Order: sequence, then structure tokens, then C-alpha cells
Amino acid sequence: MTKPFKSFIKPDLKKIEAYIKKNLDPGTSIVNDESFNLYVTGGKKLRPSLALLVGKLGDKDKYNDLIKTAASLELIHMASLVHDDIIDDSETRRKRKTTFYKHGYFQAVNTGNFLISSAIEAVSHIEHQEFHDTYALAMRQIVEGELFQFDTQFDDMQTIDNYLDKIYKKTALLIVLSIKLGAFATNVDRKVLKSLIEYGYNVGMSFQIIDDYLDFTASEKILGKPKFSDLKNGHYTLPVLLLRNKDSTFRSMLKKYSKHRANSEELSKYILESNAIQESKAISNKYLDDALQNVTDIESPIKEYLVEVVEKLRDRLN
Amino acid sequence: MTKPFKSFIKPDLKKIEAYIKKNLDPGTSIVNDESFNLYVTGGKKLRPSLALLVGKLGDKDKYNDLIKTAASLELIHMASLVHDDIIDDSETRRKRKTTFYKHGYFQAVNTGNFLISSAIEAVSHIEHQEFHDTYALAMRQIVEGELFQFDTQFDDMQTIDNYLDKIYKKTALLIVLSIKLGAFATNVDRKVLKSLIEYGYNVGMSFQIIDDYLDFTASEKILGKPKFSDLKNGHYTLPVLLLRNKDSTFRSMLKKYSKHRANSEELSKYILESNAIQESKAISNKYLDDALQNVTDIESPIKEYLVEVVEKLRDRLN
Repeated sequence: MTKPFKSFIKPDLKKIEAYIKKNLDPGTSIVNDESFNLYVTGGKKLRPSLALLVGKLGDKDKYNDLIKTAASLELIHMASLVHDDIIDDSETRRKRKTTFYKHGYFQAVNTGNFLISSAIEAVSHIEHQEFHDTYALAMRQIVEGELFQFDTQFDDMQTIDNYLDKIYKKTALLIVLSIKLGAFATNVDRKVLKSLIEYGYNVGMSFQIIDDYLDFTASEKILGKPKFSDLKNGHYTLPVLLLRNKDSTFRSMLKKYSKHRANSEELSKYILESNAIQESKAISNKYLDDALQNVTDIESPIKEYLVEVVEKLRDRLN
Repeated sequence: MTKPFKSFIKPDLKKIEAYIKKNLDPGTSIVNDESFNLYVTGGKKLRPSLALLVGKLGDKDKYNDLIKTAASLELIHMASLVHDDIIDDSETRRKRKTTFYKHGYFQAVNTGNFLISSAIEAVSHIEHQEFHDTYALAMRQIVEGELFQFDTQFDDMQTIDNYLDKIYKKTALLIVLSIKLGAFATNVDRKVLKSLIEYGYNVGMSFQIIDDYLDFTASEKILGKPKFSDLKNGHYTLPVLLLRNKDSTFRSMLKKYSKHRANSEELSKYILESNAIQESKAISNKYLDDALQNVTDIESPIKEYLVEVVEKLRDRLN
């Protein structure tokens, strides 16, 4: 490997930032400022990075479309964060006060909508039917995923399959979309794309499982938001469901909690003392192993970077 | 004229309703139900009707695209209503409790987003670059219009030009968009389109001016929401600004109200006793006269219907 991934992708991410700055036009209103700040103050830029990486396998003369596609994907991701903060009544995100908390409903609804419309505008010029069909369908599925998440709040009987379907719609879907759109924008070969889509699915699933159990194990400083917030909000993630399936004491505790919604600390403590976190890590690792498998046959220098993304996630995991 | 507009357009509107019902899939969740109910329980369907009407001047074999375009425009309009109700903290709309009021932020943010994504999905298959560029830009301008409206809340020094710019972005823009997209979807001749766009602008401006002064003159039963809500929310519409420009007593009252935000009843009463409403009507009528002028040269049976739309608005006005 000549350069680490971060420095390899840096010039492209700089181009995206310049594009986003030009388009979000910070300095003109609260909404513009909040939008741009959300871009610059954090996030791993996983979605645009994957779109860019996949685009390296395609036509070089489509580079400008690729940049706009990658920017659009990050903008949609940001829109979902801003609206989620309203929905979840969240005070902090990425160690900063949320738009919703600082400026109220008006600015938060509009910031999200401004980001959605900016995302759509960024790619409207791309002449590629499947690109737009795929994007539109995914946007709708993401909203449906939100709803499904709400339907299963405080539902102590939900299955692990339910959970996997939720995290697919919540996270893996947009990561798969990033790979598809990066490929469509630059006309990547279809056979290669098939493996990349599976890679994206596995990376996405792993990513959300890690995110979910970090809510139990990481410090608030690292999380940039309060700990145990999923459990408090009745979002039962993999460690909870795994433990429920095999520990009858915990099953009773969870049933009681789901009914009365008090004493989430007791549950968190019980989970941390069990091996449910370790088991979740093992499942996440299995997805990462599969992701590596998906890219073994790719013949391109970008393969090393696709592997590096997986290894970075594995580091975060441990 | 063979048939009145309402019966002429009815079969097309039925097709749109069938399409929307199929896509919004009522019966499956609160969001789906709220979305579909908003479609069936009201609204003049002005935007889809204009798109359909303009589409009659274009290629007949593009009829399916035209139906989906018209549906998409109504869906975007509905999305803006649902999100507006969050922003304005509105309890009722079209004589029913709002989604926001009945089901809270979560369902309301998601219902709006579901409608936006459904709107985009409806037209993503249409292969027409300018169609998508125009749609994306308009969506962004609509959001910017929302923001501008907020910036001038309780601003008693804003100009009438400010107001006109606001109502353009709030209402006329989507009506103009309906005409453009109906034309693009069916390849309407560009020269004809130019006049139609001006017609749409004039109809849209008039429509919002009427809406704004009905807030003073119509009964709550007709409005389907509380009276004087614009004034209470600090949205100063045409009658307010006209009266401020020429009546120094009112100017002082408005200044005081903008500062202390109390006694909006006193202001409303003063406005109703002045001739500010009459003057607003005259301005609205001028836009309608211009709209009629815009369509004099159109040689098609739809001309009569374009005229009828204007006359319907003039009836609403008086």
C-alpha cells in the first residue's frame, strides 16, 4: 500500500467540502450555518468515501459527477441526523448541541429539508436512469426504516431478525446506496459491482452493530452524547436481544422495564456484566470477515483500501 | 365550453388518486394513513390540475408520465403542509387535527419526509434532464422561502416587495413548477410554455394574496383553522403592509404590537374597518387580469379551462 486510506482520499474529500461549502453557503442564515457545521465538525465520511473509492474503478472523465454524488450522499445522511434529533428529542450530537436543541423545531425541520433538497439538487444533472430510480427508492426505504424503528420501541418480544432488518434500513442501506451510486455515476462494471454491494451490506451491518454496543461500553466523551440512550429510548439492540434469548432473569427484567420504563441503569449494569457485548462483537466481526471475502477477487489498487476500511472498523470494535 | 373544468379534469384526478392510494398504501401505518387522508380530505388540487391541463397541450403518449408528475406535485405540496404544521405549531388544518397535533413530532417529521420521498420516487423514471434540474432547484427555493418567512416574522419595517417575494416562494413558485413540469413531461412547445409560466406566476401570486386576506375576512368554518392566525404569528400580509404605509396611527399600533406581541385583536379590528382589504382585493384582481392576458393567444380548447381557473379564483376573492 502506497498511502494510508485517509491521505489517499483526502484530496477528493477536500473537493467535496469545497462543493458543499459553495452550496450550503454558510454565513447567510442559521440553517445554512447549522448545515455546514454539521459537515465540518465530524463524522467519519464513510458514505462519500465509499462512493469515491468505488468510483475509482470507473470512468475517470466522470470525476465531477462522482464528487457531486459523494457530496449528495453525505447531505442525505446529514439530513437524517438533523431530523432524527427532533424525533429522538436529542440534546447533543457529535459533542455539540443539536440544531433542534439550540434553535427549535422550525430551524431543525428546515435544516433537514434544506439538506434533502441540496442533496437532490447536487445530482439532478446526472443523466442515468437507474441512478435516480435507485436513489429515490432508497430515500423512501430509509423513511420506512425510521417508522419501523418507532413501531418496535419498548417491544421486548421483537426478534433478532427484526433488529437486523432495522439496522439494514437505518445504516446498511445508505452504505449500499453509496456504493451503487458511486458505481452508476462512473459506469463501473456490473460483475464487480455485485461483490461491492455485498461488501457494503456487510460493512453497514457491522457498523451499526458496533455503534449500538458502543452505546453500552464507550465513554460519553467518545460517544459525543449521553450513554445508554438506546435503552432509555426503548431501542433494544443486539446485546439486549441476545441476552433476552438466553437469560430468563434478564428476560423478566426487560419485560418489567418495557412496561414501567423505569430503572434502565439496572438493565445496563446487568448487560455489561454478561457476555452479551462480547457476543455482539463476534457477530460484528463475522460481518467484517464476510466483507473481506467479498473483495478478495477485485483486481485493483483500491482493494487494499476497501480492506483498510474493514480493518478500521475492526479497530473501533475492540 | 363543453364541460365545466371540474368534470373535465375529474377522470385524470381519479387516476392520480388511484396512483397515490397505491403508493401511500393507507392501512399500513399512521404515516401512510395520515398521508393518504391529507390527499382525500381536501385541497383544491390546483397544482396537479394545472399540470394536467398544460399536459393536454403536449404528447398524448406521455399521459402516464403526466399523471405521475401531477401526483408528485401534490405530494410535495402535502409534505410542505405537514412540516409547516410542525413549524407553526398548528392544531388544525382543513378542519381536521394536524398530524403533528394528533401524533407528535415523530410522526409529523416522518410523514413529511415520506411524502417528499414518495414525490421524488413518482417521477424518478422520467428521462428528461431539465425536468429534474427544475424540480430540484424549486424544492430548494421552497425551503429557502420558508426561512425567509421566518426571518421577517414580527418585522414591522419589511417592504411590500419583501412580501411579494415571500408569497412567490411560498406559493407561486410551486404553481409555476406545476406548469413547467406538466409541460416538460409531455414536450409542450416552448413558445406556448413561456406564456403559461407567466400565467402560473400571476395565478399563484393572486392565490396567496387571497389566502392571506381571507385570514381576516372568512369564518373559521371556511378557513378550517383559527382566524387572524397570520397576525398572531407575526406574519404581516398585504393588508397589514398597505395600511402601515399610509396610516400613521396604524403604523404606531403595529410597531407596538411587534415589540410586545399583545392585543392582535385590536389590530385585526382596525384593519377590518379600513379599506386595506379592498385594496388587497384590487391588487389580487390585477394579477388575475394579467393571467387572463397571458392566455389570450393560446389556441386550444384548454384555454377556456385556464380562464375558468382564473374566474374561480375571482369568485373566491369576492
